[in-house]
Amino acid sequence: MDFSIRAANLDDCKDIARMIMELAEYEKVSDHVKVTQKDLEQDGFSKNPFFHGIIAEVPEQHKTKEGHTKIGYALYFYSYSSFVGRAIYMEDLYVMPEFRGKGVGKALISKVAQLGLAAGSHQLNFTVLDWNKPSVDFYLSQGCFDITTTMGYHCMRCEGEALKHLAQL
Amino acid sequence: MDFSIRAANLDDCKDIARMIMELAEYEKVSDHVKVTQKDLEQDGFSKNPFFHGIIAEVPEQHKTKEGHTKIGYALYFYSYSSFVGRAIYMEDLYVMPEFRGKGVGKALISKVAQLGLAAGSHQLNFTVLDWNKPSVDFYLSQGCFDITTTMGYHCMRCEGEALKHLAQL
Repeated sequence: MDFSIRAANLDDCKDIARMIMELAEYEKVSDHVKVTQKDLEQDGFSKNPFFHGIIAEVPEQHKTKEGHTKIGYALYFYSYSSFVGRAIYMEDLYVMPEFRGKGVGKALISKVAQLGLAAGSHQLNFTVLDWNKPSVDFYLSQGCFDITTTMGYHCMRCEGEALKHLAQL
Repeated sequence: MDFSIRAANLDDCKDIARMIMELAEYEKVSDHVKVTQKDLEQDGFSKNPFFHGIIAEVPEQHKTKEGHTKIGYALYFYSYSSFVGRAIYMEDLYVMPEFRGKGVGKALISKVAQLGLAAGSHQLNFTVLDWNKPSVDFYLSQGCFDITTTMGYHCMRCEGEALKHLAQL
C-alpha cells in the first residue's frame, strides 16, 4: 500500500485529536480523554514542546469514506534511563482499523526507533494494555519485550486530587 | 531529621552516579548500569537536558561514615499523555538505607509532584519492581495507584541490537 511517514506539524493536530479519540474508544477509555486539538497545538508545537509526533498519510485516491488521508500517528518524547542513559518514549502508536496489516504500524515504530537512535538513545520504552493481544503480539514480533512479565516492572500513577495532595506533604 | 531538598546541579553528578549504582545493587541489576558521572553531566546539565534532578542533603554533622552528605535523589523529565496532556515522569527515587523511614522519600516525591503541577502536568508516572514491597507500599500510601494491576498496562522495551534492527525495517 502506498503511504508516507513524516513529522507532524501544527496543521495535523485536528487529525491527531480525532485519532486519539478513536484509540481511546478502541481501548474503552474514551471518557478519560481530556486532550483537545488546542492542547496538542500548544503543548507540541510551541517552544520547548512536551512531545513530538509523526503522521502516516495516504494519497488522496486512498482516502477514507469520511475523507481522511491522515490514517495513523505516533507521539514520542525524549526520556532518560538512569541505568543506560538517553532513551525515547513512545506515548502512542495508532493506525486506523481499515489500514491495519499493511505495514503502517511497523513503519511508524521503525521511524520512532530511528529518531531515538539519531538522538543517542539506547532504549525505546512504551506501554501496552495486556488484553490488546494483536498489539502485544505485534510488538513482541518486532523485537520488543514485556518487562512487566519478564522483570516485574509495574506502571504507577498519581493524578487529580491525589497529585495535589502529594505536592502538599 | 534535619535534611533539605534542592535542585541538582553539575557538582552532584558524582554522588548521583554513586547512588544510581547503590539503587541498581538493591534492585539486583548492577550489571545493567552503563551510565557514568560524565554521561549525567552531559545529558542532564547541558542545553536541552534529557532529565532534571533533585537532591536530598543532610548537614555535615549527620554525614555518613564514608563522608556523604548527599543521601537521596530523584530524576524526572516532562512527558505527555495523549489522553490527559502534560505529565511528569519520575525515573528514579532513592534514599540511602540508613536514612530511610525519616520522610526523605516522601519529601522527594512531593517535590516532583510540585514541579509537575507547576509545569501544568496532570499526571505523575513512574515504574516500580513488584517484588520491592516496601516501595510499592510506600507509593500506594501516598495516593499513587498501580495501573498494571488495575488497568492492565504493561511496560514494553526495545534496546540494543533489536532497537537497531527495528530502525532498519
